[in-house]
Amino acid sequence: MAPGDHGRERRGYHHGNLRAALLEAARALIAEKGPMGFTIAEAARLAGVSPSAPYRHFRDRDALIVDVAREGFTRFAEALEAAWEAPSLGPLKALDRVGSAYLAFARDEPAYFSAMFESGVPVGADPELKRAADRAFHVLVRACEALRPLAPEGRRPPALMMATHIWALSHGVASLFGRGDGGRRSSPLSAEEVLESAVGIYLQGLGIIPA
Amino acid sequence: MAPGDHGRERRGYHHGNLRAALLEAARALIAEKGPMGFTIAEAARLAGVSPSAPYRHFRDRDALIVDVAREGFTRFAEALEAAWEAPSLGPLKALDRVGSAYLAFARDEPAYFSAMFESGVPVGADPELKRAADRAFHVLVRACEALRPLAPEGRRPPALMMATHIWALSHGVASLFGRGDGGRRSSPLSAEEVLESAVGIYLQGLGIIPA
Repeated sequence: MAPGDHGRERRGYHHGNLRAALLEAARALIAEKGPMGFTIAEAARLAGVSPSAPYRHFRDRDALIVDVAREGFTRFAEALEAAWEAPSLGPLKALDRVGSAYLAFARDEPAYFSAMFESGVPVGADPELKRAADRAFHVLVRACEALRPLAPEGRRPPALMMATHIWALSHGVASLFGRGDGGRRSSPLSAEEVLESAVGIYLQGLGIIPA
Repeated sequence: MAPGDHGRERRGYHHGNLRAALLEAARALIAEKGPMGFTIAEAARLAGVSPSAPYRHFRDRDALIVDVAREGFTRFAEALEAAWEAPSLGPLKALDRVGSAYLAFARDEPAYFSAMFESGVPVGADPELKRAADRAFHVLVRACEALRPLAPEGRRPPALMMATHIWALSHGVASLFGRGDGGRRSSPLSAEEVLESAVGIYLQGLGIIPA
């Protein structure tokens, strides 16, 4: 595109920058108003572009949220993978690290966390979003595949089911006790302590660690 | 107040009705835009009253959200109590019923659920809100007090800790797999099955049910 046409906005965004600027504006608006609480026009205003500019990249507001959520799940997956792939820790310690990484992400990235889990946008709505979310979940599946052989035979639920349980537990602890807003609920235990003790009892239930 | 003064609005709300109408408008706006996504003026407009009318009952938007959350926690506590108090079921079956009631509430009352858990308003911000939330949590504490003696001595964590674990698990399952928006995440198991199987393994870990 030639300079001066619709490829440039008053702040001089070129194609890639405009997209990034809109995603950044959306994250700021999610932090302030929640993932359902703003229009695509507000995101354009905050990014300093015309109201029609977002439509070069995003069909509508939900498409913008989907991209924030996808970016969030990609970073989340990277954080969980880095926690899991600590060499030579053994699966129990590595699982602890994955749990801590889950909580740290919820605490440090409240806007991504909202877009990923509280936006009302179904993960199945977009194949790339689904792929990013599956990549994050897959870290837990791998962890459970490594833990499963430690359970006595006949007490080994499918790794997918174990991963679903541990995901739900991590997610509940993060949502209730470990949010970026400084703890909306008080507990005598830290979020890390709640999660670690609960996972410990769960793994006892499978015979993976002794009671 | 005499008719015609500020005690009446153009739809003729008297004091109590105005408050109820604003709470209803807030719930509708939460369902549409999330608990952080609207102004008190929008709630007034939806209720058909002047922009200043809400200030007779609510200091600001957050105070309105606090009241929706408090009302939500009161109904939630009633639902959990009704599930727990089924006579003569025994604590294990009664706990299952409490878990199902948790999931049913999240599914049937998405606006309350958002106001209670995703609004960013700290539960400690208001004594009545805290009381209502504590009342709901207390159902789980009572359930765990009843279950605890079934564990072998020396394997009995405090009931408060058990209740925190089971709450986090229920909340995680409800948030991830059991929302009113028709399941934003797919799982081969229903939310009820995920929760029941996870709680079962947890209770095995405490020796409350046999492995």
